[in-house]
Amino acid sequence: MGLVGLCPGTFDPVTNGHLDIIQRAARCFDEVVVAVLENPGKQPLFTTEERVAMLKEAVADIDHVTVESFSGLLVDYARARGTGAVVKGLRAVSDFDYELQMAQMNSRMAEVETLFIATSPQWSYLSSSLIKEVVRLGADVSGLVPALVQSRLEDKLAPRRE
Amino acid sequence: MGLVGLCPGTFDPVTNGHLDIIQRAARCFDEVVVAVLENPGKQPLFTTEERVAMLKEAVADIDHVTVESFSGLLVDYARARGTGAVVKGLRAVSDFDYELQMAQMNSRMAEVETLFIATSPQWSYLSSSLIKEVVRLGADVSGLVPALVQSRLEDKLAPRRE
Amino acid sequence: MGLVGLCPGTFDPVTNGHLDIIQRAARCFDEVVVAVLENPGKQPLFTTEERVAMLKEAVADIDHVTVESFSGLLVDYARARGTGAVVKGLRAVSDFDYELQMAQMNSRMAEVETLFIATSPQWSYLSSSLIKEVVRLGADVSGLVPALVQSRLEDKLAPRRE
Amino acid sequence: MGLVGLCPGTFDPVTNGHLDIIQRAARCFDEVVVAVLENPGKQPLFTTEERVAMLKEAVADIDHVTVESFSGLLVDYARARGTGAVVKGLRAVSDFDYELQMAQMNSRMAEVETLFIATSPQWSYLSSSLIKEVVRLGADVSGLVPALVQSRLEDKLAPRRE
Amino acid sequence: MGLVGLCPGTFDPVTNGHLDIIQRAARCFDEVVVAVLENPGKQPLFTTEERVAMLKEAVADIDHVTVESFSGLLVDYARARGTGAVVKGLRAVSDFDYELQMAQMNSRMAEVETLFIATSPQWSYLSSSLIKEVVRLGADVSGLVPALVQSRLEDKLAPRRE
Amino acid sequence: MGLVGLCPGTFDPVTNGHLDIIQRAARCFDEVVVAVLENPGKQPLFTTEERVAMLKEAVADIDHVTVESFSGLLVDYARARGTGAVVKGLRAVSDFDYELQMAQMNSRMAEVETLFIATSPQWSYLSSSLIKEVVRLGADVSGLVPALVQSRLEDKLAPRRE
Repeated sequence: MGLVGLCPGTFDPVTNGHLDIIQRAARCFDEVVVAVLENPGKQPLFTTEERVAMLKEAVADIDHVTVESFSGLLVDYARARGTGAVVKGLRAVSDFDYELQMAQMNSRMAEVETLFIATSPQWSYLSSSLIKEVVRLGADVSGLVPALVQSRLEDKLAPRRE
Repeated sequence: MGLVGLCPGTFDPVTNGHLDIIQRAARCFDEVVVAVLENPGKQPLFTTEERVAMLKEAVADIDHVTVESFSGLLVDYARARGTGAVVKGLRAVSDFDYELQMAQMNSRMAEVETLFIATSPQWSYLSSSLIKEVVRLGADVSGLVPALVQSRLEDKLAPRRE
Repeated sequence: MGLVGLCPGTFDPVTNGHLDIIQRAARCFDEVVVAVLENPGKQPLFTTEERVAMLKEAVADIDHVTVESFSGLLVDYARARGTGAVVKGLRAVSDFDYELQMAQMNSRMAEVETLFIATSPQWSYLSSSLIKEVVRLGADVSGLVPALVQSRLEDKLAPRRE
Repeated sequence: MGLVGLCPGTFDPVTNGHLDIIQRAARCFDEVVVAVLENPGKQPLFTTEERVAMLKEAVADIDHVTVESFSGLLVDYARARGTGAVVKGLRAVSDFDYELQMAQMNSRMAEVETLFIATSPQWSYLSSSLIKEVVRLGADVSGLVPALVQSRLEDKLAPRRE
Repeated sequence: MGLVGLCPGTFDPVTNGHLDIIQRAARCFDEVVVAVLENPGKQPLFTTEERVAMLKEAVADIDHVTVESFSGLLVDYARARGTGAVVKGLRAVSDFDYELQMAQMNSRMAEVETLFIATSPQWSYLSSSLIKEVVRLGADVSGLVPALVQSRLEDKLAPRRE
Repeated sequence: MGLVGLCPGTFDPVTNGHLDIIQRAARCFDEVVVAVLENPGKQPLFTTEERVAMLKEAVADIDHVTVESFSGLLVDYARARGTGAVVKGLRAVSDFDYELQMAQMNSRMAEVETLFIATSPQWSYLSSSLIKEVVRLGADVSGLVPALVQSRLEDKLAPRRE
């Protein structure tokens, strides 16, 4: 078995920015596991099952990538999966401080290292919450999320046009 | 042959912060190559040979780590070494913008990905230039650089005490 | 008809920092439209009508400035008003990332450009939420918001002194 | 009576990062007052009394440090305590903007100066909310908070293991 | 005569990122003047005449854009050109602090306002100095600068291949 | 003897922003020592003696403030002066990273604490180098530096007007 890179996230829903990071992680590791956080504390728009299903379809063409869900501490899950390498996208300075904090906590708790990949410039302004915000107001997000995700988002959020 | 992670830098001289990143990269890859940039344009304090020699001694105890030097474009060197994964330490927001720029340029030029690892908190304030600045003023930097590096630095920079 | 600059915001309530941006935008464009976002999702302290009324009084002395309210996507509203230029104040780095994200989304969706003006130093620490926070605790905010706004804020928020 | 430095905060709960700032403030002032904000608006995990009690035990060994609680404006409290010097820890750039805003507001309202001390690197990733988040998921936070605080946190938050 | 937007810079040499800002400024103003700073203090790679000539060719297809050079204070030049609106691209947080400083100085000295436009994501990592740095090392920068600029850069900087 | 706050800097030359920090430090400490760094490595515009003389005149009206010069490590100088409290102004995020690095190095080397005070908003864009840059181009900097400093700067830097 080779080196496993873990890509954790809420993915509520997956965007083309997430897919870019997953594809680039797949170039650096033998195997990539996309790990969907169940986070029962927050109120995601999509259920864990829906988020996993959309991701599975979106990564179907990328080799050596699997999708799972997890709950609890990321470091416990990483150990259970036999890996010490977490891969995260980094878009902007405002991501940086929180992610750095979390990375240093995870490194201290369990020698799990976080490897940050800079999001490709063309997706640098994308986030799941921005996507939801603009769809709710009637925006067309084709080209920013996979087609399946767009139609699921519009079913749930788009304003009715009568 | 397994996955190779490339750790490029000037290392003028290597600090305990650099060693921390190299050790943590060694936990994520099968092999780590530390690549010393010759940069003839700048005026490093130590020659390329001196910088390589200090690094070789400093990483002697870490498995699967080798030290080399290179000149020219990092992406050309990465391709020549058969890897697409560069590993860099990230200390602070002021590092972030320049490193992100360079990473995106390298990704565009040659599909070489840069993986950033957050420097351990206890080394977050260290840089080769800060070390040189304070040794020049008479500071004791034991515990911040390997012992060999400290004595080499003091030979070159410490103020004479008569 | 000349060039129109659109100044969107929640203005809950307008501060002297907002007025500074509106005045400076009025120096750069033939006409400035201040556009109050209705945002039914959030719970503003003042109703849309109250926020529009306070702004109208506050900008009464600035030539070529009108106040309106809008809902939905800013880019749809800009197109309806026949302009492609949005003007926003930029106070600090923490504003920067979110505003940049939004500006790039708007540019992509509808070729609407966002022009950022740096808030004057003396207002750089002001925000509607900070103003509300300190009035709630009993602070005197004269000189930071228009007099009318101050008295409306104290009516709604100031602690009772018996 | 000497110079008094005021260390305000929510301390929900106190971490080793807070204690580091308090100890270092105690090296710069004749007396340090730790001031626990009651903030009835938010929902802290621990009551004001619990937060004060944990702090009192945690600072018992540091000379010239007392613990109190306060409500209302910090500047009013500072004046009542006869001091114009507030001391705050600064961990990261994301702290910086909000704290700077608040400091400038306090300086303008009452000539109360805020003195920022950089948190020691080894605690730079710590925050009360990160501590609560990971304890809730089952993490061991010994070495990051005082022992008493750890056991109180686990009583309230740790997942049941049957 | 309509509103004039002034785009000042060193343009040593012009990149596709600069052209993106000029094009977007042209959508917001009646006329755009690109103003090449002579800065005799620094040592630009290209002379003022070369920089102006490359820009003139690069903007030939954009309506209402002219290219000039200037020396001395930008605010004096803006007044002489009868405009109070300067347009600058903003790429990253590291640009932000210096540009903000300069904008506030210019606003204080002469009521000249600086309007910042966020560089398009795909050019966000570009700068004239990065372009020169990688061409010097042998990189192919087609698609990042106009074709004419690329060949001029390679004449001056590219390593000889024998 | 009371608590001493040390305000180190190059002061090449002193600006109204520096004076603001010195005045506010004087409100927090029994005595303030302004310490002019001789830094023989750099090429300051004014000699150490000139910089000390301008500062002495500028702070003549502030009680309990003295001006000295020093060379070598700041922590050695602080110990020699019997204080562990250094006071520095903090203007913007770009200052923050370097100053934090230096503060953590000084804290580690000698338990010397750095207390940061946020520069007043109206001086937040000022720096000695920006002042020199604009005077060199012919700007009027009255109100930004003391009158004596302005005339000294113009003697040395202002372009000849014949």
